[in-house]
Amino acid sequence: MKTRAAVAWAPNDPLKIEELDLMPPQKGEVLVRIVATGVCHTDAYTLSGQDSEGVFPCVLGHEGAGIVEAVGEGVTSVSVGDHVIPLYTAECGECKFCTSGKTNLCSSVRATQGKGLMPDGTTRFFKDGQPIYHYMGCSTFSEYTVVAEVSLAKIQPEADLKEVCLLGCGVTTGMGAVMNTAKVKRGDTVAIFGLGGIGLAAIIGARMNGAKRIIGIDTNPSKFAMAQKLGATDVINPKDFDAPIQQVIVDMTDGGVDFSFECIGNVEVMRAALECCHKGWGESIIIGVAPAGAEIATRPFQLVTGRVWRGSAFGGVKGRSELPGIISQYMNGEFALSDFITHTMPLDDINEAFDLMHEGKSIRSVIHY
Amino acid sequence: MKTRAAVAWAPNDPLKIEELDLMPPQKGEVLVRIVATGVCHTDAYTLSGQDSEGVFPCVLGHEGAGIVEAVGEGVTSVSVGDHVIPLYTAECGECKFCTSGKTNLCSSVRATQGKGLMPDGTTRFFKDGQPIYHYMGCSTFSEYTVVAEVSLAKIQPEADLKEVCLLGCGVTTGMGAVMNTAKVKRGDTVAIFGLGGIGLAAIIGARMNGAKRIIGIDTNPSKFAMAQKLGATDVINPKDFDAPIQQVIVDMTDGGVDFSFECIGNVEVMRAALECCHKGWGESIIIGVAPAGAEIATRPFQLVTGRVWRGSAFGGVKGRSELPGIISQYMNGEFALSDFITHTMPLDDINEAFDLMHEGKSIRSVIHY
Repeated sequence: MKTRAAVAWAPNDPLKIEELDLMPPQKGEVLVRIVATGVCHTDAYTLSGQDSEGVFPCVLGHEGAGIVEAVGEGVTSVSVGDHVIPLYTAECGECKFCTSGKTNLCSSVRATQGKGLMPDGTTRFFKDGQPIYHYMGCSTFSEYTVVAEVSLAKIQPEADLKEVCLLGCGVTTGMGAVMNTAKVKRGDTVAIFGLGGIGLAAIIGARMNGAKRIIGIDTNPSKFAMAQKLGATDVINPKDFDAPIQQVIVDMTDGGVDFSFECIGNVEVMRAALECCHKGWGESIIIGVAPAGAEIATRPFQLVTGRVWRGSAFGGVKGRSELPGIISQYMNGEFALSDFITHTMPLDDINEAFDLMHEGKSIRSVIHY
Repeated sequence: MKTRAAVAWAPNDPLKIEELDLMPPQKGEVLVRIVATGVCHTDAYTLSGQDSEGVFPCVLGHEGAGIVEAVGEGVTSVSVGDHVIPLYTAECGECKFCTSGKTNLCSSVRATQGKGLMPDGTTRFFKDGQPIYHYMGCSTFSEYTVVAEVSLAKIQPEADLKEVCLLGCGVTTGMGAVMNTAKVKRGDTVAIFGLGGIGLAAIIGARMNGAKRIIGIDTNPSKFAMAQKLGATDVINPKDFDAPIQQVIVDMTDGGVDFSFECIGNVEVMRAALECCHKGWGESIIIGVAPAGAEIATRPFQLVTGRVWRGSAFGGVKGRSELPGIISQYMNGEFALSDFITHTMPLDDINEAFDLMHEGKSIRSVIHY
């Protein structure tokens, strides 16, 4: 079949809308009609050429929602017509990771996904016979895409796909890091570095878990109003202080925060986030993706005196098991997704979404097919 | 009163046995007759001049055991004749840290202890009227010492002070890091970097908690026999491999260990210890004390993919509450301390203990008064 898709032909080139050939879903694969997709910083990161797993040409996009159009051989967990969210973190339920009970990092399709391929080592997208690579197992910048069954969360048909697509990445990542990975508790003090989509979602998670004080940190004060609307009790700009921001936060919290979250991908900020944690128990969670080769550093004394450094991927959420529950919370009004959606546009205007993001003018642009 | 003590007059000079004046215990303080004390690498570290909290001249020593000789005003938790272990990590039971239930890092005497002073800001040791500083709140390289009440664990009188002095630092630190901080579980795989006193104690802790595989790592193969005697299932020398040791361990454990422990104080080894942990859940615990200014580093991807970096001080053990229980385990034969004691000597020969340690010829030398 044919599908319209935005193709990344080479690093840093604008995406180009193409009509691609899409092969039918093979064994264990599913054809999905994408209804909406967010445009995330990680798409831009890969497009910049810095992502060591970026393979070109490819169809980017990993924050989508859609409807099952056809299933390949042996697919049993979804049927034609089901509403689904593609998962860049699969959940097979059978691998060493899935059965450990300790992590959401399923290994079932990891090796091929990292190379832009389906599990059998080939692509489903072609242009004039040339293979076009997949991206993060999702490739949602296409009207139709083929996804592994283990990479699809079946969701409630009542949920608005044009909003819940954001649960395919950013919002789940931020909320999950707070609620699943850190397990913030009622009365805790938290610091959230970076008030983009992930940081705002982290604020929502902290509020839902009952944090007493939620400190949002960003060098762009235009982000503060939304952060406060969603629950930040303090918003601070590191540029307003001479002292390092970790010292500022330690001073304003009588010794440091219980939890901090780095939602940017800047290794210096990761250090500040660790060092603003309270001695004895403060935990810092890295969510942001740093440039290839960048390293975090600190004095080991920071850890020996009781701080903990950890990370979170997709919020520690097992997509197939847990996304329906998060969607129930959304449908019950426990949190809103509309605040995140600053722009909507058709696929033809997708490069504008990247421009808005680079200029810091959007939280999320959502493409409506 | 007078006391014989080994005084560190200046960095790197040999200790000198002196007769010092010892002032009586003030409010909240206790006079202790030291019966035995271990000589630990941390004493040597401070003597080397690299310890930013090292103040000279001072009486070193922090791994001792003794008997209460007199108590100051208001002391209620110990009485004359009680057997005690001085604690460099106090436990007041009242500060923000003690009441948090999350850490053993009591803050009650921390500020003055770090300056070599008693809580009232003065010293009890003098030589010809010159104050001689305290060390880590203990100063056990003296026949008699004065210690804050909150820095004394009262222990069972039946315990052999010439052995349980080792629970004042090294053995508790290693066992506690495994049993308290990491909470190693039955069937876990662990890697222990550095097979000195702390590493050997970590092996004991791993064995007691039922670890299935205990990998000991050291560049000195003469340490291997004792490690195996205490429970190491594998012993490896990084010098025997071309690949980085973290890769060697990942390969021999099908993806990495559940827990690793750095018992040296080398920041490169701390990185290897983190990176040999299993993706998704492996945790690395820093126990060793690094040189001043040294920093740990890694790619943040190591944490985002589920590894956890933490530290442990005094094994996470609250000395006054928990040491008696550890001593019960020792008296019940659940672990032995005699394996650690390679040399004993009188105070006059204390410099020999430092020489043996520097030459790698001792696990612990214990001074008998």
